[in-house]
Amino acid sequence: MKTGIPLEEAQTTLLELVRPVKECHVSLAEAVGRLLSQDIRTAINLPPFDKSPLDGYALQAGDTETASSENPAILQVIEEVRAGFVPEKQVTPGTAIKVMTGAPLPAGADVIIKFEDVARTGNQLKVMYPLQAGSNIIRAGEDVRQGELIAAKGTVLTPPLVGLLAGIGVAAVPVFSKAKVAILSTGDEVIDPSEKLRPGKIYNSNLHSLGACCSQLGAAPVMMGVVPDEQAAIVEHISRALALSDLVITTGGVSVGDYDIVPAALKQIGAEIIFWKVDMKPGSPIIAAQYNNKLIIGLSGNPAAAFITFDLIVAPLIKRMLGFESGLPPKISAILKDNFNKSSQQRRFLRAKVEIINNIRYAKLTGEQSNGVLKSMIDCNILIDVPAGNGPLVAGQEVSAVVIGRQ
Amino acid sequence: MKTGIPLEEAQTTLLELVRPVKECHVSLAEAVGRLLSQDIRTAINLPPFDKSPLDGYALQAGDTETASSENPAILQVIEEVRAGFVPEKQVTPGTAIKVMTGAPLPAGADVIIKFEDVARTGNQLKVMYPLQAGSNIIRAGEDVRQGELIAAKGTVLTPPLVGLLAGIGVAAVPVFSKAKVAILSTGDEVIDPSEKLRPGKIYNSNLHSLGACCSQLGAAPVMMGVVPDEQAAIVEHISRALALSDLVITTGGVSVGDYDIVPAALKQIGAEIIFWKVDMKPGSPIIAAQYNNKLIIGLSGNPAAAFITFDLIVAPLIKRMLGFESGLPPKISAILKDNFNKSSQQRRFLRAKVEIINNIRYAKLTGEQSNGVLKSMIDCNILIDVPAGNGPLVAGQEVSAVVIGRQ
Repeated sequence: MKTGIPLEEAQTTLLELVRPVKECHVSLAEAVGRLLSQDIRTAINLPPFDKSPLDGYALQAGDTETASSENPAILQVIEEVRAGFVPEKQVTPGTAIKVMTGAPLPAGADVIIKFEDVARTGNQLKVMYPLQAGSNIIRAGEDVRQGELIAAKGTVLTPPLVGLLAGIGVAAVPVFSKAKVAILSTGDEVIDPSEKLRPGKIYNSNLHSLGACCSQLGAAPVMMGVVPDEQAAIVEHISRALALSDLVITTGGVSVGDYDIVPAALKQIGAEIIFWKVDMKPGSPIIAAQYNNKLIIGLSGNPAAAFITFDLIVAPLIKRMLGFESGLPPKISAILKDNFNKSSQQRRFLRAKVEIINNIRYAKLTGEQSNGVLKSMIDCNILIDVPAGNGPLVAGQEVSAVVIGRQ
Repeated sequence: MKTGIPLEEAQTTLLELVRPVKECHVSLAEAVGRLLSQDIRTAINLPPFDKSPLDGYALQAGDTETASSENPAILQVIEEVRAGFVPEKQVTPGTAIKVMTGAPLPAGADVIIKFEDVARTGNQLKVMYPLQAGSNIIRAGEDVRQGELIAAKGTVLTPPLVGLLAGIGVAAVPVFSKAKVAILSTGDEVIDPSEKLRPGKIYNSNLHSLGACCSQLGAAPVMMGVVPDEQAAIVEHISRALALSDLVITTGGVSVGDYDIVPAALKQIGAEIIFWKVDMKPGSPIIAAQYNNKLIIGLSGNPAAAFITFDLIVAPLIKRMLGFESGLPPKISAILKDNFNKSSQQRRFLRAKVEIINNIRYAKLTGEQSNGVLKSMIDCNILIDVPAGNGPLVAGQEVSAVVIGRQ
């Protein structure tokens, strides 16, 4: 078992141990936010045929070569085609077919002219100026060409992508299944928010904030509730969680005190401890173990510490299980907006928020940075990465940060 | 009925006609992504009591004033308190109480010292240096104070906010109900993606892309399918959609051709036409009507036009109905990355994507900009707002844009 390892080692060690859970097909109505489990190529052109972008007349440009107001080209309207229907006739010299927006271009025609730009009397059409072949025609395949890659495996299904899949006739979308993530909190002091508060007790926030994180990532949280600080109970709950899920997260009970018994419970289950403690603040007392090819990650019971280690270490695992190409949070740089007066003995992550002013990116601290404080997570969308041994930070300096939350 | 109005007039006129649909309570597990329908103030301090951030001993700093390695302060350990339990005794001069992480600070104690920093033999404790009163104590209310505003009405419930609500004992969260948005497509040429493609037909992408947009915004789409270009059928479907939903969106049938019959259907229903056509490209032929205090918005059948008018005009309405304070898309500026060689007679919105390089924000065009092309919507997260009468755009110039998608 390794201990006190760097964050990056914790991330890469664990990422190698997970893969996308499995695939399934969902309807277009359920597809948004899911990830494609296969490359999608289109079997058809989009649009599937040459068509009219407007209400007008399809004809041959050659008939209008010498047309003018004084000497208009005169054409015979031989058919009318609505969108959704197919022309029965062909356009030949001296003829035109009326086409509505979206109707296929009739065979023989090479140009379309707007309703408003012609004069019509009975079936006789007058065109007052020469037309250029090819005008006002939407070509088959203008949007996407038959065989073209529409989206690669691992792409998030956004609304326009859902629309594009619909447009090429993909009604059942291949996606990665939702990873099931069991979450359980430990601690004799922890009670459910639905209970009455009693002396010495606190409400369980970790279960609910991490459950919400899982939902937001697109995973299916399996809420296992609170377990008292008894090794047998923790063993029983973790075992049950392993049976119900693809990944187990616990909070609390991972420090080195007399009652921090998650590590002991993991050993009793027979799980292999991969590491215990990561060199970072907050969130250092994190433990990772594996049992039957499933990971169990024990986070600190401190709300902010649990949150930050979830974002930096657990979220990447879940994203990999959901099919994301890279689960690791993107790194950015930004200009610091505030002073931070503490020196950092240990590598430290500060809660901050990106602000773009005059097209320049700034990082603004979101408030009190201590382990137990959740309030400063509310507006936090980046974590400033302060190296070990760093002195106070000064407004105006460039800082490195990782972007958290769902991208 | 107004026609050819500016986008801003269309937005504000319609926004005045909608309000949040109603309120309900959801469990913490269902809360993420919803919007608070009430201000939330906390009825308790968080944490609720002074407590220990570590495993250690609670004592009186006064007892250690003269302590040194040679002459340690010697204290009697009189009790041990685990997290979740309440001290039975008080700390008095010469005594200490063992406290585990999260345990309440015992009465009488004013400082806590770590396990690792003392020597203990039996019940005798030696402290080797003077302690400062107040050290290593997490104070009640350090995170939030009783009565404090936690989050205002209209706030989106993010995972940390869900955690904070759990922490203050809010188990049932007051949220705005999901607005029901009916979507129906018109057009004889339009068929469902599950059908076999036939000559002259195209697959329905609008229904599915707009349904996905509604889902992503947090609304409940009501998928009404495709209606042929027959006025009676459109009247019947819009009437049914009005009964099933809070807002009705149609696509197609809003231009001025012979078969663009949504406006006629709206008049037959007895709906009041608010405006028809907005001065913008793409998406100009949009119609808005009201019937029985419900809005019906008819969008273009062109996929990109439908999408862009949804984002600029319909999404703000839905956001208002869902409880967002301002539904209007935020405006930003950015440095253009590409040339755009066309002049714009009409106000035009160009599909583009924000890229931040060296902390500077750029806008990159996402491809082909014509009305029917959906592919360039895929990566689009901003629409560059090009004023009417503007000439070609040049890489390096600053442009205005609106941010689309869910913020």
